[in-house]
Amino acid sequence: MGGMTKEQEKSIGVDVGGTSVKIAVVEGREVVEKGEAIATSGYGTAEGLVAEIVWRVKGLQAKYPEVKAVGIGLPGFVDHERGVVDSLTNVAGWHNVPICAMVREECGLPTVADNDANCMAYGEWKLGAGRGMRDLVCLTLGTGVGAGVIANGQMVRGHLGAAGELGQVSIDYRGRIGHYGNRGAVEDYIGNNEIMRDARILYATSENPREDMEKLTPIVLENAAKSGCGIAAGLWEDVATKLATCMLSCYYILNPQAFIIGGGMANAGDLLFSPLRRQLRAQIYPPHFERLQILPAQLRSDAGVIGAARLALDATDRT
Amino acid sequence: MGGMTKEQEKSIGVDVGGTSVKIAVVEGREVVEKGEAIATSGYGTAEGLVAEIVWRVKGLQAKYPEVKAVGIGLPGFVDHERGVVDSLTNVAGWHNVPICAMVREECGLPTVADNDANCMAYGEWKLGAGRGMRDLVCLTLGTGVGAGVIANGQMVRGHLGAAGELGQVSIDYRGRIGHYGNRGAVEDYIGNNEIMRDARILYATSENPREDMEKLTPIVLENAAKSGCGIAAGLWEDVATKLATCMLSCYYILNPQAFIIGGGMANAGDLLFSPLRRQLRAQIYPPHFERLQILPAQLRSDAGVIGAARLALDATDRT
Repeated sequence: MGGMTKEQEKSIGVDVGGTSVKIAVVEGREVVEKGEAIATSGYGTAEGLVAEIVWRVKGLQAKYPEVKAVGIGLPGFVDHERGVVDSLTNVAGWHNVPICAMVREECGLPTVADNDANCMAYGEWKLGAGRGMRDLVCLTLGTGVGAGVIANGQMVRGHLGAAGELGQVSIDYRGRIGHYGNRGAVEDYIGNNEIMRDARILYATSENPREDMEKLTPIVLENAAKSGCGIAAGLWEDVATKLATCMLSCYYILNPQAFIIGGGMANAGDLLFSPLRRQLRAQIYPPHFERLQILPAQLRSDAGVIGAARLALDATDRT
Repeated sequence: MGGMTKEQEKSIGVDVGGTSVKIAVVEGREVVEKGEAIATSGYGTAEGLVAEIVWRVKGLQAKYPEVKAVGIGLPGFVDHERGVVDSLTNVAGWHNVPICAMVREECGLPTVADNDANCMAYGEWKLGAGRGMRDLVCLTLGTGVGAGVIANGQMVRGHLGAAGELGQVSIDYRGRIGHYGNRGAVEDYIGNNEIMRDARILYATSENPREDMEKLTPIVLENAAKSGCGIAAGLWEDVATKLATCMLSCYYILNPQAFIIGGGMANAGDLLFSPLRRQLRAQIYPPHFERLQILPAQLRSDAGVIGAARLALDATDRT
């Protein structure tokens, strides 16, 4: 493959989500071919789902024999060095699954695995909004708040592969008790479900309750705020305040050059980014804020497969 | 110097504090000779103080001609790569001071500078409680809360050399407004002065006010708690709760193998460490807490000079 750049080589990215698994052949930041999505819950065991992933990977491999590697992103604790899934957050039955060995043996391709937020961050760093940076934090806002951290030009995975759990950063030492018994975890305030719960309460107790209370989504709230609804606008402001607090803590610990923000909630655009920038400006030493970038992610809904695919490609150099 | 290990070589460590500057010749984790301390505020300008430091360094150099380098720790923003002090937190008149070039030109020795908390962390990592670890966070508890972060076996300094500012981590998104306009910074709750203020209020409003209100110090509070004083015991519990929240946020972002805790407050020993361990145990995923170490710093009051001296020695290999 002499003379080909990384952007011209193909690899397969797999993005395991709580509801579906996406698989794609990727070249640079292009998705060359997307396989049909798999339902995550349809296979009973981890082995069953991995067998299905292997089957799909082999199908794509037959069509694109030039693919060089497979990268897999998963929502939970992944031991990247050993290629083993320790546990998944919202998918039962995954404990100590040696996913890389299983895929590699069947497909004969170098295979790497990592936390899904790390894969997204890797993609944004190598191919998206964070290209060329040495220190950055890439957040994903959705059901939870995830992140990948790059420091000194390297992905920070931590001692047990659990770094970047920004959703667990506390914004209130007396706050709600969360998933690990920890108080005030930001994702217990600004996860999608939490925002919708707050929205329902606010509308239900307002002078003009909404008719469509069961159909509230981030997009409905986005449109409501843009149409001048004070309740919706207040909700976005509140999300920005809480997210800013988490980002500030992260900023003071890591001093990144940029925060890159993706995931469904980031689609709200200025509704989120304007108050967020305002809050951060007010709370960071001005000469430092001047040199901090707050950027929307570029790779959008395919960030997971693109990042995983690139991570796999880069890892083949090291082995 | 063939065959000598790093632990057998000598270098000079300088630890610039808010009130005094310590200078010492260091070999491994031994302070071979301590120069007389300098009063930080006695020199009007940064140049004046640097000239005094140079004078003292030269004196030690004359006595120990084998010293190989000079390392300087300073309380503020230091551009380690350029060897320039951007600004100091509680010392006026320091802006863009090229301290390394100034010392190097006069003394002819390789010179490095870094944030004081980074120097301490570096010392603990190379010579103290964190030896051999890849991912750790070293905190210093005193007037403020400082820290140094090591990830992937490298010091994390961040984009502008401002990483590790753990004192600014927020524990309350609606909290007190601090130094940079940021809300809920942990050091605005558990810095020495804040604890003493809280103590005075609690004692003044208690049924048995103390006679020695003006003489309250961490040591007085330590002894009071050990003698069964409920107010003092409650204060330490409160410090542990707030510090634990900051450490939790840091843990979820970085997933270190260890937190190493030094500085004056750490002398309280179990009074601080017991409730701290209990709080962290209750708020971290148990299989991960099992593998997290919470350790007292080993290098004590000389950590600053020892760390700075070692940092300088290691830097000479890279140039």
